[in-house]
Parts: sequence; C-alpha cells; structure tokens
Amino acid sequence: MSYYINPNVENLDRIFDQNLRSGYLRLDLNENPGGLPEAFIQKTLSKITPETIAKYPETLPFTETLAKFLHCSIENICLVNGSSEGIRQVIEAFSRPGGRIVGADPSYAMFSVYSKMYGRTFVPVPYEKDLSFDSSKLIDAITPDTDLVILLNPNNPMGNVYTRDEVDAVLKKAALCETTVLIDEAYIYFYPNELLSCAFERDNVFVTRTFSKLFSLGGLRLGYVCGRPEGIRLVQKLSTPHNVNAIGLLFAEEIIKTPGMIDGLIEKQREGKKWLVSELKKNGYSINAGEGNFIFIKPKTDAAAVMNRMKAEKQILIKTYPSVGELGTCLRVTTGERQYMERFLEALYLLDREG
Amino acid sequence: MSYYINPNVENLDRIFDQNLRSGYLRLDLNENPGGLPEAFIQKTLSKITPETIAKYPETLPFTETLAKFLHCSIENICLVNGSSEGIRQVIEAFSRPGGRIVGADPSYAMFSVYSKMYGRTFVPVPYEKDLSFDSSKLIDAITPDTDLVILLNPNNPMGNVYTRDEVDAVLKKAALCETTVLIDEAYIYFYPNELLSCAFERDNVFVTRTFSKLFSLGGLRLGYVCGRPEGIRLVQKLSTPHNVNAIGLLFAEEIIKTPGMIDGLIEKQREGKKWLVSELKKNGYSINAGEGNFIFIKPKTDAAAVMNRMKAEKQILIKTYPSVGELGTCLRVTTGERQYMERFLEALYLLDREG
Repeated sequence: MSYYINPNVENLDRIFDQNLRSGYLRLDLNENPGGLPEAFIQKTLSKITPETIAKYPETLPFTETLAKFLHCSIENICLVNGSSEGIRQVIEAFSRPGGRIVGADPSYAMFSVYSKMYGRTFVPVPYEKDLSFDSSKLIDAITPDTDLVILLNPNNPMGNVYTRDEVDAVLKKAALCETTVLIDEAYIYFYPNELLSCAFERDNVFVTRTFSKLFSLGGLRLGYVCGRPEGIRLVQKLSTPHNVNAIGLLFAEEIIKTPGMIDGLIEKQREGKKWLVSELKKNGYSINAGEGNFIFIKPKTDAAAVMNRMKAEKQILIKTYPSVGELGTCLRVTTGERQYMERFLEALYLLDREG
Repeated sequence: MSYYINPNVENLDRIFDQNLRSGYLRLDLNENPGGLPEAFIQKTLSKITPETIAKYPETLPFTETLAKFLHCSIENICLVNGSSEGIRQVIEAFSRPGGRIVGADPSYAMFSVYSKMYGRTFVPVPYEKDLSFDSSKLIDAITPDTDLVILLNPNNPMGNVYTRDEVDAVLKKAALCETTVLIDEAYIYFYPNELLSCAFERDNVFVTRTFSKLFSLGGLRLGYVCGRPEGIRLVQKLSTPHNVNAIGLLFAEEIIKTPGMIDGLIEKQREGKKWLVSELKKNGYSINAGEGNFIFIKPKTDAAAVMNRMKAEKQILIKTYPSVGELGTCLRVTTGERQYMERFLEALYLLDREG
C-alpha cells in the first residue's frame, strides 16, 4: 500500500519552462515579435474597470462577436485558455485509455504529450527523408480502432500545408473508420486555405485556433475549438469554470471589431517575411520557407553556435531542431515586422562567419 | 462501431454559465463587489507594454515573489488558471479511475464534478440536521482504499471552519490510510487559522488558493497549489503550456508588493461584514455568519421571491441554496465594503415585507 500516483503522470516527461525572455528579441516561439500597436493597446486598456478585474469573466459578448466573425453560431464555439487547452479537451473527450491517436511527426509537441498524459497511444507518422510528407501514410495509419487523427495545418515546425485533396482524403478515411478529426489551425492566418467549414459541416471534426500567433495575444491565453454543437457541448463540459480571462476576451474582441486591424497584422507579417526571404536568397542562404510565420535557414557555420551567440551577444532568441533530419543543421526563425527581420539579419551576417 | 465518446464526459452534468452580470451589484459569487482601488488599477495597467501582451507569460518572477510571501520555495508552488484548475490537477494526479474521493457535502461543486469527469467515486459526507458538521464522520469515511480527501476551509456555502484538532485528526487518519489530502483555502484570508504549513511539512498534503476572492482578481484567473516539491512536480506536469496569463501575474505581484494592500482589503471586508451583521441583528433578522466573505440571512418573506425581485428591481445578485436543509429558506449574500452592504440592506428592507 502507498499513496496512489497516476502512472501516466508519473511517467510523463514534461519540460517546465518559466519563459525568461524579457528584453530579448523573441524569434523562437512564433509570437508576433513587436506585438500590437501601442495606441491600440492603450485604447483597449482604457476600457478596463475595477469590475473587469474583480468579476468572473463574461464570455457571451465575445463569443457572439467571434461567431459573427467566423460565420457560425455560438453553439459552434468553445473558448479555451489557449488552443492547447482545447486540444487537450478534444483528446480527453474523443479518445479512450489505450486508444490510438494518429498524427504527423514532428508536429506540435503537446499532441503526443497529452496522449501520454491520458494513457493514449500516439502513433507518429514520420516525414520522408527529403522532408516531404506523404499524406497517404497518415491515411493508412487511420485504422478502425483509431480514436483520433490530428492535423496541424500549416504544420509546425515543418511549415508544410495539406492540400484540400489531402484533407478530404483524410476526412473520408476518418469517417469510414469513425475516427474523430482535430485540425489545429494555429498558423492559419499566414495561409489562406482554411478548413474551418469542415468543423461545421461534418460530424466529429474539430478545429482549434489561437489568439497567440497572428493576433499577438500570447500573454493573454485565448483560443477556441470549433465543431458541431453536439460535439462542442462535450468539449465544453471539460472546461474548468471561468477558464478564459477577462483581459484576453477584451483584447480579442477589440482586434476583431477594429476595422483593418487583422489585415494590417497579416500584411506586416507577409511583408517582413518576404523581405527576409529575399535578402537571405540574395546573400546565398539556403532556406526552407513554408506557410507559417517561421522559416528554416541553413547557416554557413554551426547552427547551435549561431543560436547561442545570437542569444548571448545580440539578445535575439531563435531555435534549432537537432533531431529533425536535415533541418537539424538549420536555424528556425519566427518571421514578423520588417524592423525585427532587419535586426536579425544584421546579427546573422555578423555571427555566421568562418574564423 | 461508432465515434468514441468518453462516457464520463457524456454522462457529466455541467452548468455552462456565461456569467452575464455586468451592471449588477454582484453579491452572489463571493467576489470583492467593489474590486480594487481605481488608482492601484491604473498604476498597474500603466506597466503593460506590447511585449506583455504578445509574449508567452513569464512565471518565474511572480513565483519568486509568491514564495517569499508564503515563506516557502518556488518548488513548493504550481501556478494554475484559477484554483479550480489546481483542484482538477490534484484529482487527476492522485486518484485513480473508480477510486474514492471523500469530502463534505455541500461544498464547492467542482470537487464532485471533477470526480465524475475522471470516473472517480465522490463520497459525500453530509452535514447534520442542525447544520453542524461532524468531522468524525469524515474521518470514518477515509478508508484504506480512499485515494483523496478534500477539505474546503472555511467551507462554502456553509461558512464553518475545521479546528486545528479536527484537521490534525483528518491528517492522521489520511496518513494511516495513505490517502492524499487536499485543503482548499479559497476563503482563508477571511479567517486566520491557515493550514498552509501542512502542505510543506507532510507528504501528500496539498493546499489550493485563489486570487479571485480577497485579492479581487476573479477576471484574471490566477490561483496556486502548494505542496512538497516531489508532489508539486507531478501536479505541474498536468498543466497546459503557459496556463496562467501575464496580466493576472502582474496584478497579483503588485498586490503582494504594495505595502498595506492586503491588510486594507481584509479590513474593508471585515468592517463591511461586521456592520451588515450588526444591522441585521438590530432589525430582528436571524443570520448564519461563518468565517467566509458570505453570510446566510433568513428573510421574513419567501427567499426565492426576495432574490428574484432583488435582481429585477434593484440590480443586486444574491443566491439561495434550496437543497441545503434549513438554509434553503435563507439568502446567501457575499459580504464586502460597507457601501455595498448599505445598498443591499436598503433593498432588503424594501423588498422583504409582507403584503
């Protein structure tokens, strides 16, 4: 006899990162490096009263705004404390202990972490050696005993997107096997072919989205799950009470309601990324630029050394993925407004030199 | 064959309340009705930059401030998105499917909701007919096959507290049965005999606390779990990434660091409650005032009718608990700053009259 400990939790590897990134140019986690315009922030903050802070958050007004924005009903939406919480709730609701969850590998790490957390079996479908993804292998992995298949579109860190034909083939096989489908659209605004309508039109298809990336609200923790009302009701049942905060709701509402705001954010991002890619090419760099707000750059010297010096000497945070085949020798850099791309490039030219 | 749905979720009853409470005097959910001082809020908001909003939250600085405040180490603390999330994580980590979870009834509804969500068996220990609680019955309910026992101290909605002797007896029996103990101190600042040290000194004892009540941050969703480092590591593993938001962290830090702030909040609450109780007694009302920031008042007319008219005619929200024995005929009213108690009392005198 001894104190009971959940073995799934005991055996789970988690990285507990306290995110000490103040003062750095953050090009490591696909946030908006510059954040929202100062004037917009001040105007939004001016709406905060003692009641906003003290009162349990009111979710209905924002949910209505969001439903209008998404051309759906409020019954199609479950608000979550960052889309990661929504992913967790879909896994909890629609897969069973020991059940199979299929997804690309590499992808967002929490897909497999949550699978382990709840005793599910995550079945990774690897990329090819040339870093392409063969979606027919993903489709083959969907078997009648598969509870859930997860697509991150565009995928992170790879940046690739699924074509509409590929998605339709996944949905068809999943429907045949009665496998629930989760499409995570964290990076959707950087890529126009969105699959949201699948969540409204088909049984057991869910889409998760976040306000942390394009919408620049990483600090405020807001995301949502879309699906048909009967499925959303189940996802909603797994929410903690008052799971989203009042300031996140306020900022997200103001972003959606401010004319031109979202297009402006997309445009700044596109322009900065295009400029960076073009400059890198001009300077003979080999790059891998998919459809997210991030690219891979093959440095002329050692990637890890460049990453470390960039942090120590230039206060710029970037990432490497040592385990991802050929990309392991590359830098993964979040793209954003041109001024930050200029600062990064200046540092790269200085640090990525032999001898 | 069909889409798999987790039966615990399918069978779970949840109330999905979108909290439409703007413009009301909120005396129903034990928030601080007036909230924090306007000047403090403005000063704190002035520290928010575009980076605060865009960046994933940094938890270390606040965790260090909180550890100093609690006289413990950062390894003793897991920050959570409201203490309710912490309660959930303790249940997930330290009880098994089908396992017994023992707690007083009535108490915070989420104890039994989470138990059902994860397929645990919640064993309610009822109050006596005279509304007293016999803790020996709770102790008897802790058996060698009990995974977890939960105490809310002071309990809500009842307002009673456990004496130190009662708690020690619970801890002793739990240690004997190797049963994990969760002490929820949501209402602790309204009552001085806190049990936090138990979480640092004993194996498998956890304490949850919230910033939503005295600290007046209900809209910002922040709470924490305290325990020994080895237990906290397990609770932490169940957190979603970036589970607490940057604005909640900022406000909580400023509250703790502002001299006199916490004592001032306690004093305003105490003064308002004392005044309300004394006025009600003077006017012949029978009341049940425990140690939380809420009291029960026996109205002279029908409780539900008074509650409904108070909302419709006076924009004041209060609660009734129809199922709780004799208290079912009472109003449950959150206490707070005197100006709000005066507004409530004026409404009560007007509406609680025969004919």
